[in-house]
Amino acid sequence: MSTKEKLYEGKAKILYPTDNPEILLTYFKDDATAFNALKRGQIRGKGEVNCTVSVALLSYLENKGIPTHLIEKISPLEMLVKAVQIIPVEVVVRNIAAGSLCKQTGLPEGQILPQPLVEFYLKNDDLGDPLLTYDRLMLLELVTDSQLTELKNLTLKINQLLQTFFLECDITLVDFKLEFGFDGEGKIILADEISPDTCRLWDNKISDPQARIMDKDRFRRDLGEVENAYQKVQERILAKIN
Amino acid sequence: MSTKEKLYEGKAKILYPTDNPEILLTYFKDDATAFNALKRGQIRGKGEVNCTVSVALLSYLENKGIPTHLIEKISPLEMLVKAVQIIPVEVVVRNIAAGSLCKQTGLPEGQILPQPLVEFYLKNDDLGDPLLTYDRLMLLELVTDSQLTELKNLTLKINQLLQTFFLECDITLVDFKLEFGFDGEGKIILADEISPDTCRLWDNKISDPQARIMDKDRFRRDLGEVENAYQKVQERILAKIN
Repeated sequence: MSTKEKLYEGKAKILYPTDNPEILLTYFKDDATAFNALKRGQIRGKGEVNCTVSVALLSYLENKGIPTHLIEKISPLEMLVKAVQIIPVEVVVRNIAAGSLCKQTGLPEGQILPQPLVEFYLKNDDLGDPLLTYDRLMLLELVTDSQLTELKNLTLKINQLLQTFFLECDITLVDFKLEFGFDGEGKIILADEISPDTCRLWDNKISDPQARIMDKDRFRRDLGEVENAYQKVQERILAKIN
Repeated sequence: MSTKEKLYEGKAKILYPTDNPEILLTYFKDDATAFNALKRGQIRGKGEVNCTVSVALLSYLENKGIPTHLIEKISPLEMLVKAVQIIPVEVVVRNIAAGSLCKQTGLPEGQILPQPLVEFYLKNDDLGDPLLTYDRLMLLELVTDSQLTELKNLTLKINQLLQTFFLECDITLVDFKLEFGFDGEGKIILADEISPDTCRLWDNKISDPQARIMDKDRFRRDLGEVENAYQKVQERILAKIN
């Protein structure tokens, strides 16, 4: 772990500065939170899984033409990334209804959506990360209309790439959350992590609706076997890319 | 009150059938609820005020070219309305930031919005009337794209008319909720009520941010003088139209 002072500590990661102001170090913690940190715990080995999975998926996307903040993995829990100015909006893409979409619309969990649903949430824990309409995004001046279109297009492209990737791992990509930032040149690039903390992943080899869950929902919903599920995601991904 | 069986009982009103299947009777109750009925109470005289105010505002709008469900007031607590098939979407228009908009975005209460903000909420108490994005409205197939445009245009026109009306009563129309329905010919018309239960109204003669409140926020936030505030709204409106 870096000996420097933390730049920022989030719920699952710590950001440290490096000697180069354009490069940051991301450290992955085992700490897990859910329901806007009302539920707290630890998932043993989560930091390693999320670091490995994030690096694997970000470099896969980078190779497919998606600009990301990834530089390189430097230890089991650490990756170097480009310093970006994070856009305070969480971009969620949903292929299958689950989670808050079901709670807020009454759609049954597991219903396949006619097309991927891209949604924007305010990145603000104090306010509970609320859903944003187009008009609210514009009102809060979080992004411009053309940046919003760019975020949506990038997200749909990432979704298509990751759906294909996970399908080859016998995993269904139900939904996931992305964060973007502006790099030194003001270009929008993919930031943050992509892991079982930020994706809903269902095992295609299992049909039972609870047993198939391979992501943080196991922790949120006290389904047990949390560590095993995270390890299995890592194993499938490593088996595919190696 | 009608001796017939209730067709539907809501939180603040009861709908009764009449001998004519195309006509319903709306009965206004004194019952008040807030926070999705977690808070319950009564506001003495509310039924009469809301009946009088709704009839006054609906007939004002009708005269200005807005199609509404109003037929006529037949007693202090009852109005006859056209039977409509209610669209299960609450349309909210906001001129000034208040209520859930502030809670969900951090905007300060009282901030004047650069333009009226028209928002759509799912009319579903069990789900807590959640905010709907455009994509969710389309996904749930609650309205078509062209119906949505029509609802938005009608709402903006109503907002302009009511803002002018209330200004002449020395009242600021902060925000309000509308409901629409399809009449016998499938035309979208304005339904439900327009009252201090469904509008945020601030007294322009008072500058104190709590004392100026003339609507259900006095009940929601235990500000007292609830009945007086409702009566004052009625008096100002009657003084203007008579």
